[in-house]
Order: sequence, then C-alpha cells, then structure tokens
Amino acid sequence: MTDTIFGRIARGEQAADLLYEDEDVVAFRDINPQAPIHILVIPRKPIATLNALEPQDAELIGKLFLAAARIAAQEGIAERGYRTVINCNAEAGQTVFHLHLHLLGGRPLQWPPG
Amino acid sequence: MTDTIFGRIARGEQAADLLYEDEDVVAFRDINPQAPIHILVIPRKPIATLNALEPQDAELIGKLFLAAARIAAQEGIAERGYRTVINCNAEAGQTVFHLHLHLLGGRPLQWPPG
Repeated sequence: MTDTIFGRIARGEQAADLLYEDEDVVAFRDINPQAPIHILVIPRKPIATLNALEPQDAELIGKLFLAAARIAAQEGIAERGYRTVINCNAEAGQTVFHLHLHLLGGRPLQWPPG
Repeated sequence: MTDTIFGRIARGEQAADLLYEDEDVVAFRDINPQAPIHILVIPRKPIATLNALEPQDAELIGKLFLAAARIAAQEGIAERGYRTVINCNAEAGQTVFHLHLHLLGGRPLQWPPG
C-alpha cells in the first residue's frame, strides 16, 4: 500500500484543518478550495481508488456520506445544497491515491460537473 | 414519500436503458448525458437527498459505489478514470428527489467539478 499525504493526515502524522473525525472517518478543508466550502472526507483505511473497493468496504463508504451530510449541516449549506464528488484515476483528475470525497458548496454549482 | 421518475424506474414501472440491477441497486443511462459515458446509479429504496440518510443506509450507499465501479469496468473506463457525483438540493442542481449517483467518463473531466 503506497503511503500518501491523506494517509498521514488520517494517522495524525500530518497537520490539517480538521473539521470532523471518528474511528473510521476524518474530514478537513481542501488546501486548494474550488468553492467557498470545500472539504475532503476520507476513510482512515487506505483505499487507493474506487476500483479497489471490496464488498466489505460498503458500510465505510456510506459513513463518508453520513459524515459529509453532517458537516454540510454544520457549515450551514445542507438546505441550499452541496455537491459530493469522488474521482477515480487520471481522466477524473485523481492525484492522491487515498480515496477521498470532495464536499463542495456555498455557491451555485454548474452542470456538467467538470 | 414523494414519488419520482427514478422511483418508478426502480420499481419497473417506467422504461429506462438499464445497465445493471440487483436487489438493492438499479443503473441506467442518463437521458441528458454530459460525457460519452453518463450513467445513473440509484438505490431501489427511495431516499430523497443525502440529508435524509440514516445510519442504517450506510451499506446501501456503499453498494451504489461498488456497482458504479463494476459498471465503469464493463464500460471500459475504470483505468482511464471516471467521476462520481451525488448532488444535494438546489445549489448543486438536484432536480429528482430520489438520491442518485452520476457516473461520468469517456473524456477528461475538468476541475472545478461545476
């Protein structure tokens, strides 16, 4: 398993602007925000990409979204709306190979989504 | 629970270009595609938005992503890459209030994601 900056954040070895953490999930602000609110939600377990998901990871992936919804409420964007994005591999622009959910909001988001 | 077109597709009451289905999940092509491959993956269970998720839905949400990864492989975009998007409420552009995952690929996807 290749180490990544997100793995180091998940293990507390790298500083980040943490917003939420529990035994399975960590959330922090993206350092290159694409919207007024742009937060990353990651599993502590290092999973490289969506392609590497195994059936036993299903509940963990769902927990990322439960955390994202909770954080959206805390940030005051739950009712206005927000977008969640998970990129896989090069054509989607994935650059860190530790699966991560982007939570974006605070402005109207355009369509198509990139 | 408000009925929606996706609920009718999930129940087999409305035709769609189905690509995958199992007891929990249905996938079909978006009728207004934003990329060469643009597929919607939905739970059969009608959940209006991410804000309505409950802890017992976590595994089901994960199953949407397991299905998306399987479909991406079938469509030949798993290695090139693909983007998954779930929109919540108006500022994200959600128009059908039955939770749905957008799977997009077949072209380079831009950043920001909308």
